[in-house]
Amino acid sequence: MKIIPLFDRVVIKPDTQTSKTKSGIVLPSTSQERPQIGIVTAIGSGLDIDANNVGMQVRVGDKVLFNKFAGSEVKIDDETLLVLRQVDLIAIMEEN
Amino acid sequence: MKIIPLFDRVVIKPDTQTSKTKSGIVLPSTSQERPQIGIVTAIGSGLDIDANNVGMQVRVGDKVLFNKFAGSEVKIDDETLLVLRQVDLIAIMEEN
Amino acid sequence: MKIIPLFDRVVIKPDTQTSKTKSGIVLPSTSQERPQIGIVTAIGSGLDIDANNVGMQVRVGDKVLFNKFAGSEVKIDDETLLVLRQVDLIAIMEEN
Amino acid sequence: MKIIPLFDRVVIKPDTQTSKTKSGIVLPSTSQERPQIGIVTAIGSGLDIDANNVGMQVRVGDKVLFNKFAGSEVKIDDETLLVLRQVDLIAIMEEN
Amino acid sequence: MKIIPLFDRVVIKPDTQTSKTKSGIVLPSTSQERPQIGIVTAIGSGLDIDANNVGMQVRVGDKVLFNKFAGSEVKIDDETLLVLRQVDLIAIMEEN
Amino acid sequence: MKIIPLFDRVVIKPDTQTSKTKSGIVLPSTSQERPQIGIVTAIGSGLDIDANNVGMQVRVGDKVLFNKFAGSEVKIDDETLLVLRQVDLIAIMEEN
Amino acid sequence: MKIIPLFDRVVIKPDTQTSKTKSGIVLPSTSQERPQIGIVTAIGSGLDIDANNVGMQVRVGDKVLFNKFAGSEVKIDDETLLVLRQVDLIAIMEEN
Repeated sequence: MKIIPLFDRVVIKPDTQTSKTKSGIVLPSTSQERPQIGIVTAIGSGLDIDANNVGMQVRVGDKVLFNKFAGSEVKIDDETLLVLRQVDLIAIMEEN
Repeated sequence: MKIIPLFDRVVIKPDTQTSKTKSGIVLPSTSQERPQIGIVTAIGSGLDIDANNVGMQVRVGDKVLFNKFAGSEVKIDDETLLVLRQVDLIAIMEEN
Repeated sequence: MKIIPLFDRVVIKPDTQTSKTKSGIVLPSTSQERPQIGIVTAIGSGLDIDANNVGMQVRVGDKVLFNKFAGSEVKIDDETLLVLRQVDLIAIMEEN
Repeated sequence: MKIIPLFDRVVIKPDTQTSKTKSGIVLPSTSQERPQIGIVTAIGSGLDIDANNVGMQVRVGDKVLFNKFAGSEVKIDDETLLVLRQVDLIAIMEEN
Repeated sequence: MKIIPLFDRVVIKPDTQTSKTKSGIVLPSTSQERPQIGIVTAIGSGLDIDANNVGMQVRVGDKVLFNKFAGSEVKIDDETLLVLRQVDLIAIMEEN
Repeated sequence: MKIIPLFDRVVIKPDTQTSKTKSGIVLPSTSQERPQIGIVTAIGSGLDIDANNVGMQVRVGDKVLFNKFAGSEVKIDDETLLVLRQVDLIAIMEEN
Repeated sequence: MKIIPLFDRVVIKPDTQTSKTKSGIVLPSTSQERPQIGIVTAIGSGLDIDANNVGMQVRVGDKVLFNKFAGSEVKIDDETLLVLRQVDLIAIMEEN
């Protein structure tokens, strides 16, 4: 089963391990307002709901920072994914 | 009796069995915020309320993910259907 | 006395019998959020409030599904009618 | 003293007798949400606040249906009038 | 000291005597929602905040009806004035 | 240290003495809703956040009336300044 | 690990020492509404979410004044950074 996000939406696999790794990123669970990290697994067509092409600024495989409470959660084959609008992505995280 | 949705609306037959099948999609009833799965049974003209043609991004027969609380419920011949705006559709679900 | 709706408004005669007929449409009174069925008895000019012609998507005589709480109720010659904006119409109901 | 409404506003003389006449229109006082009937006594230039000409859809003398809680009330020579935006008018009432 | 209103704002000298005069206008203090009467003493350039020229629909000296709670109050030489946006003006009052 | 306001913002040095001077302007502290007086000490580029040039309607040195609760306060070299958007300026005050 | 802000966002390293230095800027902790000072460490493409190029008004290295509660906080290699939209920047601070 594959999710094809509509409009300017993206599918994100949240990186729940981040706060425990040595990657240098720490997102302590005490802070409810910190954004989350995840990997983009699918992107929409880049059309917005008025049929304008806004262009996708991220690609499949990008590690992204996103707003924790944005989007919709869905579970496929025991994997929890998030579908959110591109605008709820904050930044791309890149290894040095 | 047939429903012809107006503007950019679509008619969805909700897939209430999803959470019990082996399709790989699990939408546990404990989570009120998870989106639902359904099949598109009719689509509107694609005109928005300002008479612009925004185009329909889904087709009849598509399996779609949508916001649970969006749209209006109607019952025809003992079948419960939902009419919602295309913008409330989140993604198309495709078999691998 | 005749009602000529302004802008993109329509006049609807609600079909209060629907929930009891054999037409196949059942709108149980227990659900406050189900839409209602009615017949369009008059339509506006199709101009919106900015003087753009948005076009009317329904015609007099159409059986339509509409949001229960939209619009304004008025009583003429013992007949209760609703005046609502075209955008509050959800779908056209057509006999098979 | 004369009121010249600004922009797309109209002046309405509310028809408080309607609910008691034989005109066929009944607006029972038990319902707070029913619209009111009145006569248009003056209309604005039809310019909106962005200086676009939206055009006036009603004329002086028209009997109109309007939202009860819209607009501003003013008393001139013991006559209570309402000034409201054209968009708060719902329909024109015409004798058959 | 002179007030030069910015954008589409106007300066109004409220006519606090209105409710007691024989001018025919009565604005009883019991009603909090009635608009007020005042004289326009200065007008802005007619540019809105996006630098579009919307044009001023009133002139210095006009007697105007305005929303009581709109705008900002300022006191100059013991005179209380109001600065409000043109859009908060409802109508021009003219002697017959 | 110098503040260069971004977009259509201005820097204002509030005139806290106004309510005690003989300048004719009285802004009693009892009224929380009265606007304040200040001197413009710096102006932005006049670009708005969509990169349109809206133009600055005030100049450095102008005495302006502004909304008390608008903008952000900053202290530089013991001087309290306010940075606010041009749209929160109400009027220019000019000596007769 | 590097943060590449999306759209018109910027990454800011907050200057938590400001309130204790001799730089002339004092942002007392008693005031919750005072803006903060920080250094821009990365800027986005300048595209807004509708794919228009709004242009970036700040450069990497700029000392900026920004709204304390805007944006998202992220911790990288023990360094706390903020990602916020350009519009939440108030001013550039420049040494005399």
